[in-house]
Amino acid sequence: MKALRVERGLLSVSAVDRPEASSEALVRVVKSGICNTDLEIVRGYAGFEGTIGHEFVGVVEEAEDAADLIGKRVVGEINAGCGSCDLCQQGDPRHCPNRTVLGIHGRDGAHAEFLKLPAGNLVAVPDEVSDEEAVFVEPLAAAYGITEQVEIDHETRVAVIGDGKLGLLCAFSLASEAKSLVLIGKHANKLAHAGMNGRDIETIELKDGGKLPTGFDVVVEASGSESGFGTALDIVRPRGKLVLKSTFHGTPSWQASRVVVDEITIVGSRCGRFQPAIDLLSSKKVKVDDLISEELPLSDGVKAMEVAANKGVLKVLLRMA
Amino acid sequence: MKALRVERGLLSVSAVDRPEASSEALVRVVKSGICNTDLEIVRGYAGFEGTIGHEFVGVVEEAEDAADLIGKRVVGEINAGCGSCDLCQQGDPRHCPNRTVLGIHGRDGAHAEFLKLPAGNLVAVPDEVSDEEAVFVEPLAAAYGITEQVEIDHETRVAVIGDGKLGLLCAFSLASEAKSLVLIGKHANKLAHAGMNGRDIETIELKDGGKLPTGFDVVVEASGSESGFGTALDIVRPRGKLVLKSTFHGTPSWQASRVVVDEITIVGSRCGRFQPAIDLLSSKKVKVDDLISEELPLSDGVKAMEVAANKGVLKVLLRMA
Repeated sequence: MKALRVERGLLSVSAVDRPEASSEALVRVVKSGICNTDLEIVRGYAGFEGTIGHEFVGVVEEAEDAADLIGKRVVGEINAGCGSCDLCQQGDPRHCPNRTVLGIHGRDGAHAEFLKLPAGNLVAVPDEVSDEEAVFVEPLAAAYGITEQVEIDHETRVAVIGDGKLGLLCAFSLASEAKSLVLIGKHANKLAHAGMNGRDIETIELKDGGKLPTGFDVVVEASGSESGFGTALDIVRPRGKLVLKSTFHGTPSWQASRVVVDEITIVGSRCGRFQPAIDLLSSKKVKVDDLISEELPLSDGVKAMEVAANKGVLKVLLRMA
Repeated sequence: MKALRVERGLLSVSAVDRPEASSEALVRVVKSGICNTDLEIVRGYAGFEGTIGHEFVGVVEEAEDAADLIGKRVVGEINAGCGSCDLCQQGDPRHCPNRTVLGIHGRDGAHAEFLKLPAGNLVAVPDEVSDEEAVFVEPLAAAYGITEQVEIDHETRVAVIGDGKLGLLCAFSLASEAKSLVLIGKHANKLAHAGMNGRDIETIELKDGGKLPTGFDVVVEASGSESGFGTALDIVRPRGKLVLKSTFHGTPSWQASRVVVDEITIVGSRCGRFQPAIDLLSSKKVKVDDLISEELPLSDGVKAMEVAANKGVLKVLLRMA
């Protein structure tokens, strides 16, 4: 089968063996989405080698222990725990120290004609969610996962910093839960999505020297930049919450005394549950089709990655057939 | 009256006018305690000028709007809000942007024969709590205030980093609430207090190259050093909580990606309610007398500050009469 792979630092579409399901489920991938993490892996992040990609929709072809899944259209939780450590036993394979992660760590990923995952990781996709929408379940789950860690209700004033894919999904999924939400970014063309597709989300375009409103109850840092973290700390209210959503590599320095004196809570947030994200798409509360910049065949995977790396581009999809 | 003051960067015991109570309460100070913050103010922290000191016990001499307090022995919450802003109206004067803070910001402090505070800030001290113990109410409230922000119960494995006064009070007050607690520090003589006065708290003396246990549910950083923050991040479990307790000035750099990938929560924590701290002392659940290194008269205030700055010294008290 064809797969988009990183090997010895080089990205290519290669012919490799189809994975053996063994005790897991074999999924024929229909479409996959390129995430910034994919781009970072090519730059050497996490030292991963193999097939990249972790956002996908596919059809189950084999599933020894879950025959009811066969033929179903599914998406998949990307972390696979060892099953035997304390955390796995407590139902938290997402943080298992021995976990593999689809296309990121120890497990070939989704930019391929086939992938395998434990059957327990797969979630069926209802008919009203299109293939294109289903590819967004993983990042949307990560965005909406904020609500699993931080209470957001009709009294909560939220700011989201960052107008990339992740920031937009955070804004789209949290706006209707909050009292108010403002999306802060540097790119007018990306901020414009806050007013598309029936949305009505307030935006602020960050310009040098511009003054931002302050006093937010919750600030989501989704820009992935060190300056975004500083901005977040500037605009969160005393006793407010700063959600750190993007895995940037910097070691930002920060005024620890502001965090203590104003008793701010910083919440690291990575993943989220899939079913609530599927429900958001299924009910059309969150629409994502305007975030798709381009779709290319898997055979053009290297080109697709180049397109995804361009400024101004949002989601790039790969189709397998 | 005499007062220990910082003026134009110089510390001295000076003669100044007794404060006018006006609409507040006038308190005759009996004893006060020297905090590291006092030492930092002398070094220029917060730009404060005036009478320093914010840990005290005293007797109310005047209180126009709270006559029942007159003659009572009291301790006092150090933040005085403006009373009219949103935060004050919501009952949170501790974070009022226009607040004054006893001996720290905009308000003369407690190392003096008299001080004034709003009557609402004062809490009566029961007879079974000695003057020496009562001086510890403010820092003990700050230590035990952690339980207002982070759940600690008999399932919680806690580590406290830092064996100074604040770290010890955190350990003493949290040990009986947690499943287990280990105090980590660099000073054998300070760590020894974990085994004094009927206590039985596990300690680890940090030495270069020593390996620490990991996987703590809650880690309290009370060392006030940048390396303490790094250590805390190393030993907290995935999805664990790191409580940042001390107002150090550094801008520590840190692996933001660890916080995100392992979904760690960092909680800035400064103050706590006074009544629970009084109850801990009153019930003898927490004993503090072995933490007193020395007591000096107010007239020797400058010398007392020098003593307090010495390595190995814990709490230094001042007596006013």
